[in-house]
Amino acid sequence: MKTVSSPSQMYSISMDERNKGKKVGFVPTMGYLHEGHLSLVRKAKELSDFVVVSIFVNPIQFGPGEDFDRYPRNPERDCQLLRELDVNVVFMPSSTDMYSADHSVFVDETTLSKGLCGAHRPGHFKGVATVVAKLFNIVQPHMAIFGEKDFQQARIIQRMVRDLNFPIEIVIAPTVREADGLAMSSRNTYLSPAERKKATALFKALSVAREMCQNNITDVSILRESVEETILQHGDKSTVIPVKIEYIEIVHDETLVPLEKVIHPARMLIAVRIGNTRLIDNILLK
Amino acid sequence: MKTVSSPSQMYSISMDERNKGKKVGFVPTMGYLHEGHLSLVRKAKELSDFVVVSIFVNPIQFGPGEDFDRYPRNPERDCQLLRELDVNVVFMPSSTDMYSADHSVFVDETTLSKGLCGAHRPGHFKGVATVVAKLFNIVQPHMAIFGEKDFQQARIIQRMVRDLNFPIEIVIAPTVREADGLAMSSRNTYLSPAERKKATALFKALSVAREMCQNNITDVSILRESVEETILQHGDKSTVIPVKIEYIEIVHDETLVPLEKVIHPARMLIAVRIGNTRLIDNILLK
Repeated sequence: MKTVSSPSQMYSISMDERNKGKKVGFVPTMGYLHEGHLSLVRKAKELSDFVVVSIFVNPIQFGPGEDFDRYPRNPERDCQLLRELDVNVVFMPSSTDMYSADHSVFVDETTLSKGLCGAHRPGHFKGVATVVAKLFNIVQPHMAIFGEKDFQQARIIQRMVRDLNFPIEIVIAPTVREADGLAMSSRNTYLSPAERKKATALFKALSVAREMCQNNITDVSILRESVEETILQHGDKSTVIPVKIEYIEIVHDETLVPLEKVIHPARMLIAVRIGNTRLIDNILLK
Repeated sequence: MKTVSSPSQMYSISMDERNKGKKVGFVPTMGYLHEGHLSLVRKAKELSDFVVVSIFVNPIQFGPGEDFDRYPRNPERDCQLLRELDVNVVFMPSSTDMYSADHSVFVDETTLSKGLCGAHRPGHFKGVATVVAKLFNIVQPHMAIFGEKDFQQARIIQRMVRDLNFPIEIVIAPTVREADGLAMSSRNTYLSPAERKKATALFKALSVAREMCQNNITDVSILRESVEETILQHGDKSTVIPVKIEYIEIVHDETLVPLEKVIHPARMLIAVRIGNTRLIDNILLK
């Protein structure tokens, strides 16, 4: 496994592989890898001949007051995990490799990015789309794998690929969960043991909503209410954990347009603060 | 010469040439070709093995009330001229080939695009950067040629290439002028004979400024005054032609930052309305 920090060297390596007729698969990450990331890497290995994983905590997708500085990092461990999976290249640029001091060009998605996390994290998806466009041009992959857990992000990247004509296939791979249902996330590491227990409420609530849908309850306001109640009531009452629901939304699975009645295909997405930690999760309802 | 309208077919053709080891050169145009465009095509032929010219009047770079509908078009004549130059492919997509009804992703340059034409045509350079990013992904060129006449545009595209890591070399080719100095432009066709005469004032005024600089007059306010006077006074006084100066600016040639004293490298850029026609021109001062 090669470790590369220079964008131009990364580009040359990928072009050499492409010229040899190899199919390049790409998994962009912010590192601190967990089983969710590793499942994306396995998917990339399955679908391509040459796998590049990037590790870059992208400063421009964090807002002021967000967790850029304390975002967890462990590049040595990450590289060890990727080596075990026989990844071909880990691309780990520095911020100055990626952004000139006078960087002034951004990729902006203006529809899908407005609701859900976009409404609560202004500028976040512009930062994501910009860095992914840059990484696509540097890594020149045939395909890139994104996690279903960051579902709005995946749909925005698909839209960017369509609207800017990137010749890249986007694959969305299923969310990987802990045994108790919590969606894997690098941010889970922020949770205290009591918060970690409480965090299972997210998947519990999504599962309740899906079951209600299967029983033909399709009124979104009723579903949201049950989900809210489940999140707030779930778990051990002996410790008080501050919980703040940021949003509970049911949207069209492709257009992300909010729905009033659950139709096919609909997805529920939620964002909840458990203590100081912001967690997101989602589930396909029908 | 092949004429292609489908983006995916265009992509396949370019990739085939790249895979044969050919260097792909690209000249994006809005058609109604004149000697200025043809000089860009000749430059592309000189620097590459396989030349693609696009003809696409890009709706999203025109503001409301601008000349999108009446912009001159003559694809048959354009194709004839390009055939004579032995161009390999003319790419002529339709608007619906280029923009889905729910298109929502834009490329936005936020510094170089703010002054000069950007201040007078809000959204213009966002439309330009977006369509050029799309064309780059479709045509997959090694290099692209832009005209010095649209100098701010060329600098913005260079910035986009740098900041989004497009693996493409941008070449800026010199402005081609009529015998009397008027910079060639498809919009010159809008000018009445009297306006056409008056239009020579632009290059006349730029030449005056350059000569003053050569005589070590470097105070920008003095230079602007002379240029303004030259534009307004130049030519036949027997017919009254309405002339409106939109801007006269001296900026750093690379950063486009406005200057107060002419330093090296400085460029003067002007935009003037002659009757209803908006003309731009520029000159390197030192």
